[in-house]
Amino acid sequence: MDFYELTMSNGYFLNNKKDEIAVFDLFYRTNPDNAAYSIFVGLEDIIDYINNLSFTDEDIEYLKGLNIFDEEFLKYLRNFKFKGDIYSFKEGSIIYPNEPILTVVAPLIDCQLIETSLLLLLNHETLIATKTNRIVLSAKGRGVSDFGARRAHNADSAIYGAKASYIAGANSTATTLAGKLFGIPVSGTMAHSWVMSFDSEYDAFLEYAKIYPENAVLLIDTYNVIKSGVVNAIKVAKDFLIPNGHRLKGVRIDSGDLAYLSKKVRAILDKHGLEDCKIIVSNSLDEYKIQSLIDQGAKIDSFGVGENLITAKSNPVFGGVYKLVAIKNKNGQLVPKIKMSETVEKITNPGFKDVYRIYNENNQAIADLLTLHGETIDLQKEGSVVDPNKPWKKINFEGCYLKNMRVKVFEEGEQIYRCPTIEETKKELARIIKDELWDEEKRFIMPHTHYLDYSKAYYELKVRLMSENSYEEK
Amino acid sequence: MDFYELTMSNGYFLNNKKDEIAVFDLFYRTNPDNAAYSIFVGLEDIIDYINNLSFTDEDIEYLKGLNIFDEEFLKYLRNFKFKGDIYSFKEGSIIYPNEPILTVVAPLIDCQLIETSLLLLLNHETLIATKTNRIVLSAKGRGVSDFGARRAHNADSAIYGAKASYIAGANSTATTLAGKLFGIPVSGTMAHSWVMSFDSEYDAFLEYAKIYPENAVLLIDTYNVIKSGVVNAIKVAKDFLIPNGHRLKGVRIDSGDLAYLSKKVRAILDKHGLEDCKIIVSNSLDEYKIQSLIDQGAKIDSFGVGENLITAKSNPVFGGVYKLVAIKNKNGQLVPKIKMSETVEKITNPGFKDVYRIYNENNQAIADLLTLHGETIDLQKEGSVVDPNKPWKKINFEGCYLKNMRVKVFEEGEQIYRCPTIEETKKELARIIKDELWDEEKRFIMPHTHYLDYSKAYYELKVRLMSENSYEEK
Repeated sequence: MDFYELTMSNGYFLNNKKDEIAVFDLFYRTNPDNAAYSIFVGLEDIIDYINNLSFTDEDIEYLKGLNIFDEEFLKYLRNFKFKGDIYSFKEGSIIYPNEPILTVVAPLIDCQLIETSLLLLLNHETLIATKTNRIVLSAKGRGVSDFGARRAHNADSAIYGAKASYIAGANSTATTLAGKLFGIPVSGTMAHSWVMSFDSEYDAFLEYAKIYPENAVLLIDTYNVIKSGVVNAIKVAKDFLIPNGHRLKGVRIDSGDLAYLSKKVRAILDKHGLEDCKIIVSNSLDEYKIQSLIDQGAKIDSFGVGENLITAKSNPVFGGVYKLVAIKNKNGQLVPKIKMSETVEKITNPGFKDVYRIYNENNQAIADLLTLHGETIDLQKEGSVVDPNKPWKKINFEGCYLKNMRVKVFEEGEQIYRCPTIEETKKELARIIKDELWDEEKRFIMPHTHYLDYSKAYYELKVRLMSENSYEEK
Repeated sequence: MDFYELTMSNGYFLNNKKDEIAVFDLFYRTNPDNAAYSIFVGLEDIIDYINNLSFTDEDIEYLKGLNIFDEEFLKYLRNFKFKGDIYSFKEGSIIYPNEPILTVVAPLIDCQLIETSLLLLLNHETLIATKTNRIVLSAKGRGVSDFGARRAHNADSAIYGAKASYIAGANSTATTLAGKLFGIPVSGTMAHSWVMSFDSEYDAFLEYAKIYPENAVLLIDTYNVIKSGVVNAIKVAKDFLIPNGHRLKGVRIDSGDLAYLSKKVRAILDKHGLEDCKIIVSNSLDEYKIQSLIDQGAKIDSFGVGENLITAKSNPVFGGVYKLVAIKNKNGQLVPKIKMSETVEKITNPGFKDVYRIYNENNQAIADLLTLHGETIDLQKEGSVVDPNKPWKKINFEGCYLKNMRVKVFEEGEQIYRCPTIEETKKELARIIKDELWDEEKRFIMPHTHYLDYSKAYYELKVRLMSENSYEEK
């Protein structure tokens, strides 16, 4: 946690504010890579974090040694357990800017102490899921594998990045520990060092094929792809694999002009009757390079993607923020709070809210909707929904229906919702992307901006609070 | 570890190659952000990793379940302990492209199994140290604090990123656990939520000042910096802090035009006799924004830097690679190996090497030097050093001296070198940057490229291997 969570919590404690109920929203303002949407991953790990959040004797000793915390507060921390409610989008949901992905309703200290870890987990896993999905879409059905561990931002980044990327559509990871922890398929065959450790490329391929006859994917670019690599791979197929009833599973190219080389290698393999041998490529790939390779007619079956996936290199920050949106007054009423800003986009959406998605008769998602918490909306009633950017607009929702996008995950500190398995989440996300998401939102260039509408009551609340909290300009 | 390390190791095991001694270099090809140098951090954590690398029963069970590994190999893994030698630059060294930062001399399997973790630790920590140092240089002596945890790529990224940034010149971190684990100073005061949780900004500031009278840094941009924030901060100083013998320590501005606001706030504070009150700013800062703020005469004492530091956003990948450079033959001789590439910069530097730094009489580092391992160089002897890019060049090293840049860290698996403390490393790095590094290498725009020379013998070895391993072009 960030240190200010502790200095503030000590302050709330000493001000008798520790049990004041507050509402915090976790939301974000823009999608990475100018995309139309993001993919929320992180809930399962957030749940784990909340369930395990506690302060050990050692932690308390450390804090005590800093000489700024109240003794009673440290005793309180020693017995701390999260006591609030959390509402959240489901793992693997499509999410949009400015809607609360998670909402925490809890005593002030509880809200504050979980701030950084909630943000960190959501920001990282959502970032990698969102990036991976772009790469997977660009591959148009061809396989994508996470090869990124060595360029990840330390171990957790590799492991949880692998998990997020698998949920978002990757087929496998090279990160062994992610395979063990999450049951994700692992993949990997050989590096150049394998080839170089033998007296010849042919020997290196042959020995590998003998050990893994069913699974021989040979790396053919150590010396020269066309003059040496593919020649030796075919020799090994003919000398050993085929006579023993096996096939050559694949070849991998990790350098050079992948469009040119893959076409040339495909032709050579085919000429030798190895039409079923797959071509796998790697080397600083991303969604744009993959799109370009496919546009050029490259003959590639599967992509290994490293640094661009595991660091989301083109846009390595997912900007989730965590803001106070309401606080309970002495009469037990939730008072909505707004954070004004001279930058209009930075004005927060105040109050405790629900989030709905509006679907048309074809079950496509046409807009999201913010309402007051617990409010009932009649979509068919004219004027019940307002587009805050065009409040004069009349919107017709004939044939449309609403879905509440969030589940209550914690109730008074108890976990009351379990995430589906990773496989289930992956499958459901793939279905949503295929069935519910418009192609116009999926394209990389100038995608359609998803609408975020407000209920009439919510719109009026926000306008009132903005007006009450605005300062005269000078 | 990447899965291919295990498939290859299983292969080496079955090929009776597990005890063949190999030499691997860990190096990188370009500095992030077009800089002239990078700062190596990661050694301490690499040492920890190597000392603790082992396979549990559970790990072996998992691998067994994949049904591709030999039983005897899995038994071997169960008892695996790293058995090799490792040479390394010291933690906190200035490093340059294409020189081996670490060299591993070990049985093939040992070399292979540590590949990904060595790369991951070095790549991450070096990346963050290198980026932080740029930010610290841009601040010209003003303080820099790491505020990045919430945007880090998961927990390790925040924690080890904080450590790397502290070594590289940050004064403190907001990441509490990094403070506890590494003894780094932690900092943090309040978020907007603290201010919003009180009935008024004045009350929020007053209550905070009462609890932390020595340490009151007030966040003044929740409502309006000039009309509200700084006014209430001054009121609290006059109403409470000063009458009780304290001073207002600082104000923080987290949004808006930081150049304009800081100057205006400075003038207002000064007018009220609060010349000693510090101004701290944050909000998506990086080295270029800080440079610009200072150029504009902004009145800022300290910078809180978040996402741009903790993700090295402008260049979030440090491209360390790990390549086989030699292998022992049956006669016990190390045979240098080269990896050719059609991209000249990707041709590896073959063989087991040492790295020296050449200093002039003013103790400034003027070039680095690759030699054969164990070779003795007489700098004064004409022709003993070759610039590989201009082999015809005559180089005069009068008055210069050499320093071997690497220490032997592991010998036959035993750690024989200990890193200095973090504080010592930080201090020594600051000294090196001040005394040894040229201003021409420190500038952000078109810095001077550090020379990497070869000894005559090493130059001849590389040329020979390139010629022997080249393919005819077509």
